[in-house]
Amino acid sequence: MSSERAVPAEQRVWTLRRAEKQRRMQRIAPFLAGKIAQSEDIAALLEGVLEAGDRVVLEGDNQKQADFLSTALSELDPRRIHDLHLLISSLSRPEHISLFERGIARKLDFAFAGPQSLRLAQALEDGLLEIGAIHTYVELYARMFIDLVPRVAFLCADCADRNGNLYTGPNTEDSPTIAEATAFRDGIVIVQVNEIVDELPRVDIPGDWIDVVLQSPKPYAIEPLFTRDPRQINELHILMAMLVIRGIYERHGITSLNHGIGFDTAAIELLLPTYGESLGLRGKICRNWALNPHPTLIPAIESGWVESIHCFGSEVGMESYIAARPDIFATGRDGSLRSNRVLCQLAGQYGVDLFIGSTLQMDADANSSTVTRGRIAGFGGAPNMGHDPRGRRHASAAWLELLRGQAPVQRGRKLVVQVAETFQYGGVPAFVDELDAVDVGRKSGMPVAPVMIYGDDVTHVVTEQGIAYLYKAEGEEERRAALAAVAGVSPVGLRSNPAMVERLRRAGTVAFPADVGVSSLEASRKLLAARNMADLVEWSGGLYRPPAKFRNW
Amino acid sequence: MSSERAVPAEQRVWTLRRAEKQRRMQRIAPFLAGKIAQSEDIAALLEGVLEAGDRVVLEGDNQKQADFLSTALSELDPRRIHDLHLLISSLSRPEHISLFERGIARKLDFAFAGPQSLRLAQALEDGLLEIGAIHTYVELYARMFIDLVPRVAFLCADCADRNGNLYTGPNTEDSPTIAEATAFRDGIVIVQVNEIVDELPRVDIPGDWIDVVLQSPKPYAIEPLFTRDPRQINELHILMAMLVIRGIYERHGITSLNHGIGFDTAAIELLLPTYGESLGLRGKICRNWALNPHPTLIPAIESGWVESIHCFGSEVGMESYIAARPDIFATGRDGSLRSNRVLCQLAGQYGVDLFIGSTLQMDADANSSTVTRGRIAGFGGAPNMGHDPRGRRHASAAWLELLRGQAPVQRGRKLVVQVAETFQYGGVPAFVDELDAVDVGRKSGMPVAPVMIYGDDVTHVVTEQGIAYLYKAEGEEERRAALAAVAGVSPVGLRSNPAMVERLRRAGTVAFPADVGVSSLEASRKLLAARNMADLVEWSGGLYRPPAKFRNW
Repeated sequence: MSSERAVPAEQRVWTLRRAEKQRRMQRIAPFLAGKIAQSEDIAALLEGVLEAGDRVVLEGDNQKQADFLSTALSELDPRRIHDLHLLISSLSRPEHISLFERGIARKLDFAFAGPQSLRLAQALEDGLLEIGAIHTYVELYARMFIDLVPRVAFLCADCADRNGNLYTGPNTEDSPTIAEATAFRDGIVIVQVNEIVDELPRVDIPGDWIDVVLQSPKPYAIEPLFTRDPRQINELHILMAMLVIRGIYERHGITSLNHGIGFDTAAIELLLPTYGESLGLRGKICRNWALNPHPTLIPAIESGWVESIHCFGSEVGMESYIAARPDIFATGRDGSLRSNRVLCQLAGQYGVDLFIGSTLQMDADANSSTVTRGRIAGFGGAPNMGHDPRGRRHASAAWLELLRGQAPVQRGRKLVVQVAETFQYGGVPAFVDELDAVDVGRKSGMPVAPVMIYGDDVTHVVTEQGIAYLYKAEGEEERRAALAAVAGVSPVGLRSNPAMVERLRRAGTVAFPADVGVSSLEASRKLLAARNMADLVEWSGGLYRPPAKFRNW
Repeated sequence: MSSERAVPAEQRVWTLRRAEKQRRMQRIAPFLAGKIAQSEDIAALLEGVLEAGDRVVLEGDNQKQADFLSTALSELDPRRIHDLHLLISSLSRPEHISLFERGIARKLDFAFAGPQSLRLAQALEDGLLEIGAIHTYVELYARMFIDLVPRVAFLCADCADRNGNLYTGPNTEDSPTIAEATAFRDGIVIVQVNEIVDELPRVDIPGDWIDVVLQSPKPYAIEPLFTRDPRQINELHILMAMLVIRGIYERHGITSLNHGIGFDTAAIELLLPTYGESLGLRGKICRNWALNPHPTLIPAIESGWVESIHCFGSEVGMESYIAARPDIFATGRDGSLRSNRVLCQLAGQYGVDLFIGSTLQMDADANSSTVTRGRIAGFGGAPNMGHDPRGRRHASAAWLELLRGQAPVQRGRKLVVQVAETFQYGGVPAFVDELDAVDVGRKSGMPVAPVMIYGDDVTHVVTEQGIAYLYKAEGEEERRAALAAVAGVSPVGLRSNPAMVERLRRAGTVAFPADVGVSSLEASRKLLAARNMADLVEWSGGLYRPPAKFRNW
């Protein structure tokens, strides 16, 4: 051995985490029969398994919620359990904030806080919590394997057997990833299930990775987040959808893609079997999707447009429809969907050629954000797909069409499309001089403004005025001019110069509807393959069962 | 329903893949007892399960190889089974090429072809195969969920039980991802295992996802790819390692990182407990790693530098050492490593602040490649970490230090460091006017040159001359001047201008060793915490057991 060994050999113990786990598991042993605990023992179980300051994952996904566990956590005595460091991808339930208000948790790393974003901002202002960082979903999971290793994870699943094997049903979502990050670092994995059964329909997560299972008094909470009622799609949505189909999908030959959630993209989905069909595009565009099971995609699926869909999560009401379409969706032996957020994010980042999403606000450089004043909404998953993945190396026709760099060293580019009406509901302009996100970031003490999609990653912007092919613009000034050309009479659009716009049109950097063969007059709701929820149900042959709040017919 | 429904309702069947699977499973039923097949039936089994033109995954990982299955495949009768479309992440065995030479396979999507890259180039020139695309590992997996859905997957694992549950041991690598992509699309998953046992040490993949298991006559092949003998580390490696530690890790406060494989990074690892310790940096840098278990990291681990390591795969000989250090490595209930390429790539992309790798060739714009003439080597995994992940949103101190963009819309940046000696062995310059990759791409008909790391993603270049802080350069010209300043007497370096270099040094855009407090005279092998393989074994307390080819003491 070298004489330079600088640190004297210590008798270091290398199994502290394992010993700590054993100690805690012994503490809760009285409440366990094998791996099974009883829901009435939940408080004692949590107090036995936790210690103040622990780093804890609470499953809070985009859709499903370990709500029995989060509620029980929020009711603990903060004199015993306090200052937890909470990792939660989607902070979406009232008790998630109560945990901080009561002092049970102190530090927060999260990705999305939609429904609780106002209360979160308030709690932050009141000094009730410290934010580690605001992530996208996959970043937060990535750090669970690096420097945010969990001590305890609280998950939810549909069923477990007595060995702790889990069946998640269609909403597998983030559970396997969190379980893997925790279980293989000698963390403790506790799962609430809707039911404990003798035999599972299929195994989604091996029982080997699970320490404690308990049947919750009622099924875990889940919200239909990806359902858009076609009734709310208007002519502007339809016009923009036509522009996208002709000016982007047809033009660039987009076969693999991801759609964000919104009425703009729902309109595209509903125009494929009508407008798209009339253009002879079936089989030529929109074949392979990274997408949650949007009900508005049913008509396109039924019309033979879709070859495959891989899902981040599922969607309430779509279970039977998906189960009857295994050639399209990833399904298990039991027939139901297998979703997986990490793998679908991977597919959405590296495996498809286009991302398209709606935005509420965009600045003159095409930076955009859905953040509104006073809220800390987080990022969710959009940034992971709404950027040019510079680690990509495989070529496709669409990717190569946006070739950039100087020969001989060049690379293609992912299409990142942003859709916005120039004015939002209530006459608020969508194109602004400064994003609200800048102010939110400043006031909340964030190190950088919470921009959802950065302008330099955006290749196309679509408004009811036309399409800005930003990737074709040469230099910053031309790029801004192209964007202004489609920004209407908003503050950004008013700076547009007609002579410049004509030059950009001739260069193909800007296109108005007529330039891509779209007539605004044709933009009618008659083009929608389904005009309401009942139509979607009919398209599905009765297999789609909308949740009560969408049963408006 | 809308009257515009364009496509007449067909009586489409939506379960073709499932029916096809059943049909094929029935064909091989005579060879199965439950899920277990016998190795002597392999030819009949393969002929029963496959059809001409199938899309097939062959596990071919970075490390472990389903060699019994690939050999059996390559011996089939090409009159019966031909024109397969092969997805293989690492094309590394002779029979992988034989499959194309014999006409059994026709189309190839792959990520890496190191050992077979010459034969691959030849087979391509001979018109024996068609390349779908050359990917990085995770891109290829991503596409398995989108448009390259597998019909059959051939995998390998350490053990299976009679229900098909799999134990992978430390080299989990890509198996769970491929199994998930295949099993949930009604594909057929066939696994060769070293042993069939009654009870598994742990479950890595649920048997539910597996169709056929067979015990192969001998254990699957695996190579030690991440072992670097400290004996081969020279003073130049050590000098560059000192530059990295002082001028990058210390300066930017790098706590989470990924090291590529090479003698440069091995030198850094071996300098932490000596040089790093003398600088008082323990606990301040290099705590959390996304990294295969490099034996050269043992001294740093033993000296208390390392908090955690998450691994893509494992490394032959490191099994017992890892099992004895569960506070550092992700391990299962059985004590052995759990690796996972996709999750570690995710962590390496989104969860760490720095990537550093060695390169053999770099052009004046800092584009680099390890491709050499006549070879089609592919990309492997480096590009997924060696780029600025623009989908990242969470901030860290190191990321924020490289802030870019115009206020108020800015973002930080990942540190992407490339290390190169200005001249390679044999006097070949590393800095060149045109990368060999450009010529290889042209001759092989690739749509773009196979660049490993693009210059615009690189933030720092380190040579024995000094460090170019490329991220600080303003404009292309200054960037090139900064790189030329450290490129020695290579064609690129000869264009350097002394006055400009002085200006860049004063601005901190270029640093020579003395500028960061490094003395070339101190760069001695005495600084290595281990100078040979025997030292590494001793540091490990005898737990590390180097493979035979490294037992040179």
